[in-house]
Amino acid sequence: MSDVWGNKLKVSIFGESHGAAIGIVIDGLPPGHEIDMENVAKEMKRRAPGQSALTTPRKEKDQPEIVSGYFNDRTTGSSLTAIIRNSDTRSKDYSLMKKLMRPGQADYPGYVRYEGFNDYRGSGHFSGRITAPLVFAGAIAKQLLEKQGITIGAHLKSVANIQDESFSDCEVTPDLLRGFSEKELPLLNEALEPQVREIIREAKAKGDSLGGTAEVCVLGIPAGIGNPFFDSVESVLSHIIFSVPAVKGLEFGAGFGISEMLGSEANDSYYYEGDTIKTRTNHNGGIVGGITDGMPILFKVAIKPPASISIKQQTIDIEEKTNAELVVEGRHDPIIVPRAIPVLEAVTAIAILDLLLDSKLYKNQ
Amino acid sequence: MSDVWGNKLKVSIFGESHGAAIGIVIDGLPPGHEIDMENVAKEMKRRAPGQSALTTPRKEKDQPEIVSGYFNDRTTGSSLTAIIRNSDTRSKDYSLMKKLMRPGQADYPGYVRYEGFNDYRGSGHFSGRITAPLVFAGAIAKQLLEKQGITIGAHLKSVANIQDESFSDCEVTPDLLRGFSEKELPLLNEALEPQVREIIREAKAKGDSLGGTAEVCVLGIPAGIGNPFFDSVESVLSHIIFSVPAVKGLEFGAGFGISEMLGSEANDSYYYEGDTIKTRTNHNGGIVGGITDGMPILFKVAIKPPASISIKQQTIDIEEKTNAELVVEGRHDPIIVPRAIPVLEAVTAIAILDLLLDSKLYKNQ
Amino acid sequence: MSDVWGNKLKVSIFGESHGAAIGIVIDGLPPGHEIDMENVAKEMKRRAPGQSALTTPRKEKDQPEIVSGYFNDRTTGSSLTAIIRNSDTRSKDYSLMKKLMRPGQADYPGYVRYEGFNDYRGSGHFSGRITAPLVFAGAIAKQLLEKQGITIGAHLKSVANIQDESFSDCEVTPDLLRGFSEKELPLLNEALEPQVREIIREAKAKGDSLGGTAEVCVLGIPAGIGNPFFDSVESVLSHIIFSVPAVKGLEFGAGFGISEMLGSEANDSYYYEGDTIKTRTNHNGGIVGGITDGMPILFKVAIKPPASISIKQQTIDIEEKTNAELVVEGRHDPIIVPRAIPVLEAVTAIAILDLLLDSKLYKNQ
Amino acid sequence: MSDVWGNKLKVSIFGESHGAAIGIVIDGLPPGHEIDMENVAKEMKRRAPGQSALTTPRKEKDQPEIVSGYFNDRTTGSSLTAIIRNSDTRSKDYSLMKKLMRPGQADYPGYVRYEGFNDYRGSGHFSGRITAPLVFAGAIAKQLLEKQGITIGAHLKSVANIQDESFSDCEVTPDLLRGFSEKELPLLNEALEPQVREIIREAKAKGDSLGGTAEVCVLGIPAGIGNPFFDSVESVLSHIIFSVPAVKGLEFGAGFGISEMLGSEANDSYYYEGDTIKTRTNHNGGIVGGITDGMPILFKVAIKPPASISIKQQTIDIEEKTNAELVVEGRHDPIIVPRAIPVLEAVTAIAILDLLLDSKLYKNQ
Repeated sequence: MSDVWGNKLKVSIFGESHGAAIGIVIDGLPPGHEIDMENVAKEMKRRAPGQSALTTPRKEKDQPEIVSGYFNDRTTGSSLTAIIRNSDTRSKDYSLMKKLMRPGQADYPGYVRYEGFNDYRGSGHFSGRITAPLVFAGAIAKQLLEKQGITIGAHLKSVANIQDESFSDCEVTPDLLRGFSEKELPLLNEALEPQVREIIREAKAKGDSLGGTAEVCVLGIPAGIGNPFFDSVESVLSHIIFSVPAVKGLEFGAGFGISEMLGSEANDSYYYEGDTIKTRTNHNGGIVGGITDGMPILFKVAIKPPASISIKQQTIDIEEKTNAELVVEGRHDPIIVPRAIPVLEAVTAIAILDLLLDSKLYKNQ
Repeated sequence: MSDVWGNKLKVSIFGESHGAAIGIVIDGLPPGHEIDMENVAKEMKRRAPGQSALTTPRKEKDQPEIVSGYFNDRTTGSSLTAIIRNSDTRSKDYSLMKKLMRPGQADYPGYVRYEGFNDYRGSGHFSGRITAPLVFAGAIAKQLLEKQGITIGAHLKSVANIQDESFSDCEVTPDLLRGFSEKELPLLNEALEPQVREIIREAKAKGDSLGGTAEVCVLGIPAGIGNPFFDSVESVLSHIIFSVPAVKGLEFGAGFGISEMLGSEANDSYYYEGDTIKTRTNHNGGIVGGITDGMPILFKVAIKPPASISIKQQTIDIEEKTNAELVVEGRHDPIIVPRAIPVLEAVTAIAILDLLLDSKLYKNQ
Repeated sequence: MSDVWGNKLKVSIFGESHGAAIGIVIDGLPPGHEIDMENVAKEMKRRAPGQSALTTPRKEKDQPEIVSGYFNDRTTGSSLTAIIRNSDTRSKDYSLMKKLMRPGQADYPGYVRYEGFNDYRGSGHFSGRITAPLVFAGAIAKQLLEKQGITIGAHLKSVANIQDESFSDCEVTPDLLRGFSEKELPLLNEALEPQVREIIREAKAKGDSLGGTAEVCVLGIPAGIGNPFFDSVESVLSHIIFSVPAVKGLEFGAGFGISEMLGSEANDSYYYEGDTIKTRTNHNGGIVGGITDGMPILFKVAIKPPASISIKQQTIDIEEKTNAELVVEGRHDPIIVPRAIPVLEAVTAIAILDLLLDSKLYKNQ
Repeated sequence: MSDVWGNKLKVSIFGESHGAAIGIVIDGLPPGHEIDMENVAKEMKRRAPGQSALTTPRKEKDQPEIVSGYFNDRTTGSSLTAIIRNSDTRSKDYSLMKKLMRPGQADYPGYVRYEGFNDYRGSGHFSGRITAPLVFAGAIAKQLLEKQGITIGAHLKSVANIQDESFSDCEVTPDLLRGFSEKELPLLNEALEPQVREIIREAKAKGDSLGGTAEVCVLGIPAGIGNPFFDSVESVLSHIIFSVPAVKGLEFGAGFGISEMLGSEANDSYYYEGDTIKTRTNHNGGIVGGITDGMPILFKVAIKPPASISIKQQTIDIEEKTNAELVVEGRHDPIIVPRAIPVLEAVTAIAILDLLLDSKLYKNQ
């Protein structure tokens, strides 16, 4: 199994990069919710390729067609399904991809796992393109969460070694989070933008690629969501975050930094602000004992540079069983982090909605 | 739900720190395996408290009694259950713990989540003590994996700001990994030991606590284990790793470091060594596209300093609804990382065995 | 949750009777299998409406489009998705169906469950039409099972009070089972056919409907499949059999009849026929202790008469909150059992394939 | 997997007939509920052996020890675990049971499934004894359901060919249902009791055994519980009912009888009784479209005669690979239905509580 996720919600994704269509089935959505389709389209556009010089020139309209679970402009409570037709699937020659295993891509592990029968065209089912349906589902989840007073947003915490500021160092408001979705390069410190553009331009010019990190915030979540041990908020979120291609690291709150703190520093002390319970610091990222404490959930995600580069690479020919050289032709993203950000927001929204629906704290509208 | 984990294996844990017993039910173990009980006892002793000056003086024999699923010294294939009686549960006064929410502990989130009915004595079900049954299950999983040629081991990658060397910088052998289980402070660079002991001693003297990181290696795992997306090896491992109390960060391979690499650097290039396919580097930590590539699985885990410290802390009184001060009396670990290491190995073993049993690559013995 | 089923396989169904499309996502199919599409079409035609005077005249081509998981004419091992467009969705006035709760239909329970937001047109997601994708998946499962030497077939055990013979009373061969799929009225005793046609014709003429039973056989299944307790073969099969609309009863082997036997009669005694272990009788329907014993799996399914009848009925108006009368206009099946038979075979095939893939007895091809 | 069941609740059972202990872990119970232990003990006594001349003389106190999840006399919301020590495990010679496969028992299927490593003493994990922990869990579930206004009860619908009346033919009240738990032979028509006792006595005298049926009623369940398709109320109930050893048939409402009705007869017509929606008949057993309609859930269960009989039987010797004869010595139940009734009530209660907790209709107390 690999394509079904969730507990109260069940999302099933399907599709290949160069197949007929990709899509998603969402089981367990509450009935009666109107979907803001314009907002969904906007979210999908954030992830879609071909938006600017920073991304691959592959053009995909990423137009989801809802074929079930939606009636009279509202969710029915039955499975909501969206299908996205693939359009720009250049009919090029993929025969080399069948035998030359691209480093950093799923070609070789996929070849072994699927006994050579996987669709290798454009990475097939391993393609980042399969995250488009997740953004669709996430956009709906975000709308439902907004009605519960919960806002999710993320920014570029770093590109290569250029570090943006952190949510920990500023006051995070719903509007700040929502505003990021308008930006191609969502940075807290906007002064960094020219520098970031330049470093991406350089990497692209060399046919190379860059990685980076994203910082995600879940604002407005009540205390008491989650569980100790196997369904801790960290466990549930990490499961779905690490299912996003190219993610290699995840830290909640101070994360690796907390390992260098003293206990007296790491413990977020409680106080009453009127009737509201808050903590003075948020080194635990809003989660203690696997359960939310009412502070914002904060986490950072490390994303590797895209494996597709134009530079010549060493690899193997799995049919000839020899060492070989490889130059990957075609359309490449010099960096995937900006396009990964809406995906990370989406899967976070799906996971938080699932946890909320599983608790007593989901308020019927 | 919070206490059941797994797919082909299902582990169900139970118990509270000061209840009658803790334990685990393991469903799905292959039949016919003899368990090396001496080895199990040794693994459990690694985690048990009261072993040295570095840990809490609470004494627990942690003697698991197997009550099902084991017959004629072999697993039957039915649920194997182990029960560990709690013995050293000092009958002290816990009334303050009921109302004063200890910072960094699950007291407050647990109070909200369980509507005030959770067992608050010694953190109840949130206690790290509940990981003892996981070490029991992990010891068995490790034995089964060894028969498959897979060895799991971990070392102290850092204590506070003292950094040990990394598995990436040395040749990792099964014997190296196994050897760590003999050591109180498993370090690659043993010269660091006096320094580490000193910094722990100092923190303890001040009534404060330290965090650190652990690095885990899964050696001998074949290529082709895992799945794209929701059941990627990273997803499955992260789910169970983040269920270990105090874990706040996780990175595979180069992790956050890979976000600063160029694609040309991050891509682990393949080559044939005889008939064997290897990669020259292992920045992806043995996992690409969610599936193993045959290289060792490598990951690092950030562990926060124990929240229980003797220093006076600010907090709230949840019954009086006022701010309050708190001094946590009792037995404390100045650092939990050394005791967390066998737990991390254990849950890694459980997850890897589950993934392996779910693939075609599990070899019947 | 309601639309996802399975363990090693995960099937997710979606769609409404009068929505844009219905379909299925099948996760976990083994890679490398060629699908006989002609055979799939034939199976789907068995269930499709408008085939004869015995069924509703609604015409649906039920043409599945595979949009993922299939490459170079073989399964890839990734999710295989099929979409079936709804075509003959007469744009009639459904406003009465919104308020008059049809007896025996899901209108009222669905109204409460989905808070009035369910798609009520043609029963929406409750429609028997949603079983078409199950037949698609079942056809593939049957093909995979045939390669393992396992054949599944079913016949009309009864229509109203007309009783056909039983599989228990004859020798069941793969060809006998396969042959049923050619028949509109699959009866063991073909002499009953005119009588059955006549009773159906009469009910139809009166605007009334008939029920019946089906008997299913799984031939060639090896001993050792299944589990005691919660995943017994009976449990797994019953779960999916009772998800087929209109099923109200299920009995394995002698079923309710076994409750009137003596133990000395009910016990199926073993003997060696050469090296093969068999039982002299098969009152337990091939399953003992939840596990197959190597004899054919046999079970009978009770199916109620279609609730849609032309006769005037008493009911309630849920908007006006009054008692009311109702005449259901439109296209009705006078009996659903013949069209349910391919659905029962399909879900049986899905369940048996799931159980087999979860055991060690699935033979790689 | 075989020993874990549930969705919002997860129950994990363990143990063997002649092992050290049997037990259950219940994850997902709501916090704050006081358990009436006397009532639990009474329920367990209904199932326990050695109560009368009608059952096996094996004596088991079946004293559950709660070791987790219960604090200050209330559920904590963490896993509640109960352990029952086996006491009367006669240390007799089981060597014949290892090789002579008892007809009608799980010996042979279990031998294949577990590769000869299963605990064969007294049927091991296949023993009906493993249902004792289910009765424990069911007793708690029944108490929680009573607080929600839901009562569950069952009676002996038949013994061999002696038929009791049906719930369909009388007015069912909570007190009627509760009253059955006081009776050794819970019959609606008490005049049948001498006849039933006599037929059981006769079978016992001959060393033979009898089957029968039970009829179960869930009273007070609101409309709107359950789902279409895979998690229909019938699917969820059947899954757990067929996990009870010896169950071979299940029918909801009129069940197999409904297959002989006309649609005009089978359709339960709605009417308003004041503000309450009811149906005039209940042929669908309170479930339509997989969802409750507010009428009592009614179903009947067929239970086979105990396979353990004193009469000489034909079978095989699996070690010698020859045909053989067998006389099963020891303590036998001449009929299991009366002891199965509390088990059926228990698993029904567990399933209904699970469905209710998963809906919005569970009322916090």
